[in-house]
Amino acid sequence: MHWLQYDTRNCSIQRTLDVIGEKWTILVLREAFNGVRRFDRIRDHVGVSDPVLADRLRKLVAAGVLEAVPYRESGRRERHEYRLTTKGLDLYPVIIALLRWGDRYCADPSGPSVVVTHRDCGAPVEAIVQCAHGHRLDSAREGCAVPGPGARQAGRIE
Amino acid sequence: MHWLQYDTRNCSIQRTLDVIGEKWTILVLREAFNGVRRFDRIRDHVGVSDPVLADRLRKLVAAGVLEAVPYRESGRRERHEYRLTTKGLDLYPVIIALLRWGDRYCADPSGPSVVVTHRDCGAPVEAIVQCAHGHRLDSAREGCAVPGPGARQAGRIE
Repeated sequence: MHWLQYDTRNCSIQRTLDVIGEKWTILVLREAFNGVRRFDRIRDHVGVSDPVLADRLRKLVAAGVLEAVPYRESGRRERHEYRLTTKGLDLYPVIIALLRWGDRYCADPSGPSVVVTHRDCGAPVEAIVQCAHGHRLDSAREGCAVPGPGARQAGRIE
Repeated sequence: MHWLQYDTRNCSIQRTLDVIGEKWTILVLREAFNGVRRFDRIRDHVGVSDPVLADRLRKLVAAGVLEAVPYRESGRRERHEYRLTTKGLDLYPVIIALLRWGDRYCADPSGPSVVVTHRDCGAPVEAIVQCAHGHRLDSAREGCAVPGPGARQAGRIE
């Protein structure tokens, strides 16, 4: 595949970034994956401003990545907490891939702050690239990009 | 692990985003993974402005994700092309995880524009989460975050 000959406007990476690529969005999702679902707690832990957090939550709900679930503490007005949908939970490989690269290349000398383990066996997890036949790709050089059914030639007027 | 009790300043996800989280950066890396290494070609294919691309390339070189390699076409001044280092190539699971989520949730009805396959067997690839004992985690619920060696309590003055 001669990548330059293809139009990037329907690139799946680009479209994923349209949903989760804004600053703070991944950190908001990190909180959700760690069970932090309420506005004030997310804000304080991430260190993000109210308006930015409100904007990111609104977009993630609109995209179907989070759902807003009402709750009410006694004597207070109704509020919402933000839970990952199936679509949101499916971002787990993205989160783990980001985590593990940072562990390898950006951690303090003392080591990473968090280790994600397999709940059943306790072994640390990794995000890996694997083919449908179960072969692990240890390097990008073992992968090959081929035109998919939605491929469009670059420069063609639609 | 009570996530809220821990300081996020040395979070590996956050630190990875410090390197690759700016707008356009992942798309520049997508080009590099597809063998597009020269300034003009990256700019035209991504649709990014000259100053933004120059800034992103400079940062990626400074971070050791790309290396600038000089080349000279006959009769022209020396220029650079940008190649992924080992540190950059290790972002492959991030790229594939973003791609596959987009394929699943954001593709056109006709399907994705690109399919990445295993060079040896031709089967399509996926980014999966797997533990060191080889168990595949099909859901974030099968994972568990525990404090790592660099964990710091939130709110502690260093």
